[in-house]
Amino acid sequence: MSEFKTAVSVVETGQVNIRGYSHAEIIRHLSYAEGTYLTLVGRLPTPAEGRMVDAMLTSLLDHGFVASTITAARYIASGNPQFVPGVAGGLLAAGQNTLSPQHSYELIRHAHELQEANGWNDAESADAIVEEYASTGRRLPGFGHPVHRGDDFRATVLFELADELGLRGRATTTYRAIHAAFVERTGKTDIPINIDGCLACLGSDLGLTADQTVGIALLAVLPGLMAHVIEEIEDGVPLRYIRDGEYVGPAERPLPDDYQRSE
Amino acid sequence: MSEFKTAVSVVETGQVNIRGYSHAEIIRHLSYAEGTYLTLVGRLPTPAEGRMVDAMLTSLLDHGFVASTITAARYIASGNPQFVPGVAGGLLAAGQNTLSPQHSYELIRHAHELQEANGWNDAESADAIVEEYASTGRRLPGFGHPVHRGDDFRATVLFELADELGLRGRATTTYRAIHAAFVERTGKTDIPINIDGCLACLGSDLGLTADQTVGIALLAVLPGLMAHVIEEIEDGVPLRYIRDGEYVGPAERPLPDDYQRSE
Amino acid sequence: MSEFKTAVSVVETGQVNIRGYSHAEIIRHLSYAEGTYLTLVGRLPTPAEGRMVDAMLTSLLDHGFVASTITAARYIASGNPQFVPGVAGGLLAAGQNTLSPQHSYELIRHAHELQEANGWNDAESADAIVEEYASTGRRLPGFGHPVHRGDDFRATVLFELADELGLRGRATTTYRAIHAAFVERTGKTDIPINIDGCLACLGSDLGLTADQTVGIALLAVLPGLMAHVIEEIEDGVPLRYIRDGEYVGPAERPLPDDYQRSE
Amino acid sequence: MSEFKTAVSVVETGQVNIRGYSHAEIIRHLSYAEGTYLTLVGRLPTPAEGRMVDAMLTSLLDHGFVASTITAARYIASGNPQFVPGVAGGLLAAGQNTLSPQHSYELIRHAHELQEANGWNDAESADAIVEEYASTGRRLPGFGHPVHRGDDFRATVLFELADELGLRGRATTTYRAIHAAFVERTGKTDIPINIDGCLACLGSDLGLTADQTVGIALLAVLPGLMAHVIEEIEDGVPLRYIRDGEYVGPAERPLPDDYQRSE
Repeated sequence: MSEFKTAVSVVETGQVNIRGYSHAEIIRHLSYAEGTYLTLVGRLPTPAEGRMVDAMLTSLLDHGFVASTITAARYIASGNPQFVPGVAGGLLAAGQNTLSPQHSYELIRHAHELQEANGWNDAESADAIVEEYASTGRRLPGFGHPVHRGDDFRATVLFELADELGLRGRATTTYRAIHAAFVERTGKTDIPINIDGCLACLGSDLGLTADQTVGIALLAVLPGLMAHVIEEIEDGVPLRYIRDGEYVGPAERPLPDDYQRSE
Repeated sequence: MSEFKTAVSVVETGQVNIRGYSHAEIIRHLSYAEGTYLTLVGRLPTPAEGRMVDAMLTSLLDHGFVASTITAARYIASGNPQFVPGVAGGLLAAGQNTLSPQHSYELIRHAHELQEANGWNDAESADAIVEEYASTGRRLPGFGHPVHRGDDFRATVLFELADELGLRGRATTTYRAIHAAFVERTGKTDIPINIDGCLACLGSDLGLTADQTVGIALLAVLPGLMAHVIEEIEDGVPLRYIRDGEYVGPAERPLPDDYQRSE
Repeated sequence: MSEFKTAVSVVETGQVNIRGYSHAEIIRHLSYAEGTYLTLVGRLPTPAEGRMVDAMLTSLLDHGFVASTITAARYIASGNPQFVPGVAGGLLAAGQNTLSPQHSYELIRHAHELQEANGWNDAESADAIVEEYASTGRRLPGFGHPVHRGDDFRATVLFELADELGLRGRATTTYRAIHAAFVERTGKTDIPINIDGCLACLGSDLGLTADQTVGIALLAVLPGLMAHVIEEIEDGVPLRYIRDGEYVGPAERPLPDDYQRSE
Repeated sequence: MSEFKTAVSVVETGQVNIRGYSHAEIIRHLSYAEGTYLTLVGRLPTPAEGRMVDAMLTSLLDHGFVASTITAARYIASGNPQFVPGVAGGLLAAGQNTLSPQHSYELIRHAHELQEANGWNDAESADAIVEEYASTGRRLPGFGHPVHRGDDFRATVLFELADELGLRGRATTTYRAIHAAFVERTGKTDIPINIDGCLACLGSDLGLTADQTVGIALLAVLPGLMAHVIEEIEDGVPLRYIRDGEYVGPAERPLPDDYQRSE
């Protein structure tokens, strides 16, 4: 009844092999970035790939209170001052509106499908996509940031590094063309490619699936998330709540007579 | 290899028995309060017990933004607008500082241990405990509320109902004696028994363990928690964050030369 | 800066109104099913609606080990024997493959769209949908159960009760027509409407949104989920793991020389 | 109303400083291990400390199905095939019985308190502690492993590396003395210091708090946890459940007449 199968590791007495390699050797010889790449992707990274993943892993180390993950985690730890629930609960805030490289993955794939169907180049698919999103009033994923206007420095540094390492690939080129077409059409120079969009490009060019790239993004936010949970436990405010919420529901009304119970 | 054992239910084709009773019959004949009591505790409640648990289950239906569970859930749904993660994440905020009847359970047990060891009555153990907490600067669990001063109406209604149903027991009497001693000693008449303390009394008098009573409390907050997550998904603000956080860490400083990496 | 708005409740010193009604009155006069309906939906249920929701809330009280939520929760509590993380973690298993009325909601809406576009009746849209799913090899949501063959008794009881209460509506009729067309086409009489599909019908006929119906389903599984977490904490096996997993990854291989680090 | 304070980072337009250092510089110049140390602890690690933390971060990359975190996550993803809930839910299994360096932290502190109170050396406090645990029938935390008998190779490699890096400190020495006393007293040479105990020693000697060390341990298991969630989503079994559970509750019994409701 071996219902469960895995290709990640095999565990025997005194020995674990991860993707075929001795775990003892891995601890001795690989960095966390390399070990993570091996574990998640199934093969050893080249030196350039290992360096790139290491930089991606440090690209979200903390973002203060400007993050739903961290604010969620602090409210959790404010009610339940324990480390693990605060950290796990904070991760649950990762989704459509934050830490979501998968939406940019879909955009890149959409562009490539358009190119293949129509024989277009990057500029042509970019124009078509920007037009398509504008005409349906949708926001392009991976563009813009509430604080970092004009430039998301984290994306800038990572894109530079990818170029230096010779790792810029088709996804990055396609996505940057979409961004260029967007800026040209709208004139909105204060809407940069943000770190989510950048991670989608780099992850895609590294051959990572969308979920694998989300995994890198989660690992990247966790050190700060953990530090905030510890701060909240050690120095926080028990039972934080929102003091200026506004009630917009029905006015006070009596319970109708036929809902009156006599014990 | 029947490693897993349970006394909760048995499942066969076309038939489930919960604590021995047919699930089909339960759906037909029991209320949710009665079914929950049966499932959690293992026996059918009397009519009075069923009524009491029903009232406990409605005692936390919602508390607006004045709750860490709800604020945590809204921040989660603001980043990840999905129902299940928001609800589960909100529950993780239940702990030492909120929805924590178990601390009052421990206090009640402590009082009873003192009584048995010293031949004391409720008033005597209450005086000793209030003295003990005052001398060590600890707060008594289950007392006080940030908004409801002088009276937590939820506790008041539940205690009244318990009296009407003939369900006041030793735990309630002991705990109310501690509260009376606290008010007498401190003169703080604006610090009532709160709903957590009340649920501990009533759960204890019903024969529920502390975890079972926490379970009732979680079910009691979930309808409001769910309603808030739905509001956040449907009408909320994507990617909420805290705008007025204060940085209290070290001033800007350069990375030392020996941490400069050349690619 | 009233960034947060809610229509669920308003909290003032000594007073909470939920959807306009006094919380103190609600505790006194409403059952949990009625209070949950009010809190989630925003209006009081009729007696028939209150009874229907109460039955829905008892329709999943426990399902032994035949549930991903419960097995997940027991593994969590086996590593971390605490009540709240086990319960919250178990809820996270609710999704596409279990406790998912929303997929049946979409199916019902799809049928109604086909009817409106083509002037079809329930039987005609049912035939088209069964054909559509068969031709694309997709499984119809809400049909079949791994244990309950031929009949999911929970769905049967709830559908009967809805009929008795006069609450059968268009969603149920449409969905049952799809099921009838499916059985006729395939001859598979052992694939009943399951409890997920049934809850979608009843929730839809009550005017609940898909997320509200998922909420009812989560409340319905929680008593059993909580009972299992308590069993695991009190009588379980610390650090359970899967003993018969099968490794299907690469054979042992040496770390290449250029990955050898000398400290 | 700056209710929220943090010393982790400050965020301004185009600039984030983490613990005072430019985040852009950190991405360029620090490894993930160094960046994590800085973010969690508040200061830059020395090269030896950075190397040690990197090894600790790779010490739990995966452990197949022999881990409650991973089995819990796979059951969650089996019901809800989504990446983030599976990962977050798996983390919730970290607690008293797994990934729990804090219990070994407490043991080490207890030994040091005994030493200071009694003027004892490591061997003397070790004997007293082993005697104390044996006489009360408690298990010493951080000793033994269900699979790795005689030696937990992960602990062995990390202890060796700490020695090479000159990072063995008082905590390691004290804890190993307790282990030596345990083996001598019991003759149980197949119960090694496990990876939890080892991480407690190394974290303590690095000056990390218990929660910070738990944080390192969580980051260390996440790559494998993520890989398993992805496997379950891509190739897993929908709606896994436990087939050989045993029912040990009451026999079938009828609902008493006074619980029969007529609609």
